[in-house]
Amino acid sequence: MVDSRWSSASSVSPGRRRGPELERAILDAALEQLGTVGWHALTMEGVAAGAQTGKAALYRRWPSKADLVAEALRTAMPQIGDIPDCGSVREDLRLLCVRTREVMYSRGGQALWSVLHECDHAHAERFHEVISSRLQEPVRRLIGELLMRGIRRGDVRPDATGPLVVDVIPAMLMYRSKVCGSEWEDAEIAELIDGVMVPLLRV
Amino acid sequence: MVDSRWSSASSVSPGRRRGPELERAILDAALEQLGTVGWHALTMEGVAAGAQTGKAALYRRWPSKADLVAEALRTAMPQIGDIPDCGSVREDLRLLCVRTREVMYSRGGQALWSVLHECDHAHAERFHEVISSRLQEPVRRLIGELLMRGIRRGDVRPDATGPLVVDVIPAMLMYRSKVCGSEWEDAEIAELIDGVMVPLLRV
Repeated sequence: MVDSRWSSASSVSPGRRRGPELERAILDAALEQLGTVGWHALTMEGVAAGAQTGKAALYRRWPSKADLVAEALRTAMPQIGDIPDCGSVREDLRLLCVRTREVMYSRGGQALWSVLHECDHAHAERFHEVISSRLQEPVRRLIGELLMRGIRRGDVRPDATGPLVVDVIPAMLMYRSKVCGSEWEDAEIAELIDGVMVPLLRV
Repeated sequence: MVDSRWSSASSVSPGRRRGPELERAILDAALEQLGTVGWHALTMEGVAAGAQTGKAALYRRWPSKADLVAEALRTAMPQIGDIPDCGSVREDLRLLCVRTREVMYSRGGQALWSVLHECDHAHAERFHEVISSRLQEPVRRLIGELLMRGIRRGDVRPDATGPLVVDVIPAMLMYRSKVCGSEWEDAEIAELIDGVMVPLLRV
């Protein structure tokens, strides 16, 4: 069943899958296990069985369950990518919010929140690194770029470069999602842009 | 053992403590246990022993461990209280941030984050209610009042009444505290006010 996914590869038997294919099958099985049994109950044996391989194939690549899960989460979170110039800081930031929402609600993003909720402090630090590298840092960097673009364009005030300005969007997205249970519909994103960001940034 | 401890009211021995005193002793012991063994390992027996009483005294007041812990957390988080008119929205909001920080870093606030990190989803909902009633709702209400005061005073633009404006401060405090590990020193609070809130609200 798993192998039908990789049917374009040269080999049809699970035993013959090449490195990258087998790796994808293992990471996919890990994500599947996270979604069904959760972080505590996930085992290297269970993932190996799900990927139709042996435990040794897992341990050769990931020394521990946490390493495997961190990589499974990371690869299941889409990249935010660059934001093209949409003509105004308003549209640029709106698109950034939509993209960020896609990452937060991706299969990997959702799995990440569940794992963080279930794991202990030591592991949480490990998984926070995944949030940082896939979500927090790319979003901060992009917002910084969009603000500079707006300053050059003339629709962002030149002194809107304080260290906390770039955190407002991710803070709001996370706070209202996690604390208030908001789904971040398009209308709420529009309100965040027009009711908070545009007034904050205007010349 | 249980009833002899507190069945009769007017004495100095622990066994004779009145209702409210015994209640305080139990809630304090629950908080102590949370700080030492954590949510999972906390037991009604352990709390009873810590408070020098019996389990029945606990169960008479709180049907479950979650009920007891929720009340222990709630009573250990200080009330934010009202914000006097400090003469400007800048100073009003700065004081609000300082007060919110006090609640977040209070013994109850710190214990609450640990519990939320350790407990399962069903219990998390229960404890989120404590955050909501002791922190989130009072802060939202206060910020709304401070904005109205600023609009009357003339240092807040009259249309700064969008539904998300009141969430910016709690979102930033929580995001940078939980995701970025910020301690929210006074200088960072000043930056939040001067770099984000004042530009967002100015006339």
